[in-house]
Amino acid sequence: MPRIHFHQQLAELKDKLLAMAALAQQSVESALDAYLRRDKGLCKFVKQNERAVDTAQRELDEMAYELLAKEQPMAIDLRFILAVIKINGDLERIGDQAMSIVRRTKEILGEPAVELPVDFAAIGEYASHMIRTAIQALLDGDAQLADSVRDMDDEIDRMNRRASADLLKLIQEQPKISQQAMNGILVAKNLERIADHASNIATDVIFWIRGADVRHQLSMAMD
Amino acid sequence: MPRIHFHQQLAELKDKLLAMAALAQQSVESALDAYLRRDKGLCKFVKQNERAVDTAQRELDEMAYELLAKEQPMAIDLRFILAVIKINGDLERIGDQAMSIVRRTKEILGEPAVELPVDFAAIGEYASHMIRTAIQALLDGDAQLADSVRDMDDEIDRMNRRASADLLKLIQEQPKISQQAMNGILVAKNLERIADHASNIATDVIFWIRGADVRHQLSMAMD
Repeated sequence: MPRIHFHQQLAELKDKLLAMAALAQQSVESALDAYLRRDKGLCKFVKQNERAVDTAQRELDEMAYELLAKEQPMAIDLRFILAVIKINGDLERIGDQAMSIVRRTKEILGEPAVELPVDFAAIGEYASHMIRTAIQALLDGDAQLADSVRDMDDEIDRMNRRASADLLKLIQEQPKISQQAMNGILVAKNLERIADHASNIATDVIFWIRGADVRHQLSMAMD
Repeated sequence: MPRIHFHQQLAELKDKLLAMAALAQQSVESALDAYLRRDKGLCKFVKQNERAVDTAQRELDEMAYELLAKEQPMAIDLRFILAVIKINGDLERIGDQAMSIVRRTKEILGEPAVELPVDFAAIGEYASHMIRTAIQALLDGDAQLADSVRDMDDEIDRMNRRASADLLKLIQEQPKISQQAMNGILVAKNLERIADHASNIATDVIFWIRGADVRHQLSMAMD
């Protein structure tokens, strides 16, 4: 009977993590939308959403802590709860990055629109795809899927490097729009950091699934 | 008798965390030194040090996990171990940022030296001071000291904003050194992220010390 209760609580923890992930995703997509459309209303929405992210993070953390304290779970369940705590932290930081994009957006709200040579929507979509895939890997307990997220990180790095280089070239050629180009460099960087967090989430999923074995293999590979 | 053993293990965990923090600090200071002196040898040292950081992180994480699994600690000890796991993650990411500074340095190793209008050493020293203070707060169980680290974060943000603005101005005025100036913007940004991690560590110390109370206060303050 208490074990059934425990597994219900684990299922609830998973549900809460999904809600947290949805909020963080929402923040990223709305923030990028706000940036691309220079939409003040969307900036406000992200700010409110960010509050919900912070509240969800604290509740989830507290629930995981209670589970550890009261149920003293063993082995795979313990690793799962620890993974949830770490993933929760990364989702919260994804929300922070979305807020940073909003701050960049506010800096240029009053400036005339300028066409920048970067497909921000594509970078954002790629980063979102990484978050979704990492969460799916958690739900399915699929280490291979989680591995694929870490591979995607290289592509985001490439996209970000190209964006930086192209915008830097623009700054050199047209110094008068350098403020907006600089802003674009920082937004691309924010998206890259969001992808980094997705990659961290994937790593936590792998550690949960493969347990101590992966770590020892890694340790040996480093020696 | 088992409890005495448990407290020895907790002390060992603390020692390992201190060693991890020292390695991460070392990486930051050497990476910045490498950047300021354009020193290829120091770049190599940071890379080797980073390997030690990664190994220490895995060992510490594994030790914390074993303690949770075998000792099933309650209340304050449980919170402490969870804080160590989170702090460990931030220290590892501080090492990642140091590696990023090394990559920036390698990009400009061949370029002629240019005087940039930014006191990188001062920003780096401030970020290091934040890490040291956060770790000291952990050792002393001093929530007030930890709070002071979070306050310092504003100053680092200011330093970073000023560095970005000054370097952007330089790019506009002297397009031919824009590559190096852009590099400087990214290094300043790396230092700011290192400070962010110090601030995260301080937050974890506060959560450990003040326990659930702080969280509830925070929740109420947000409503």
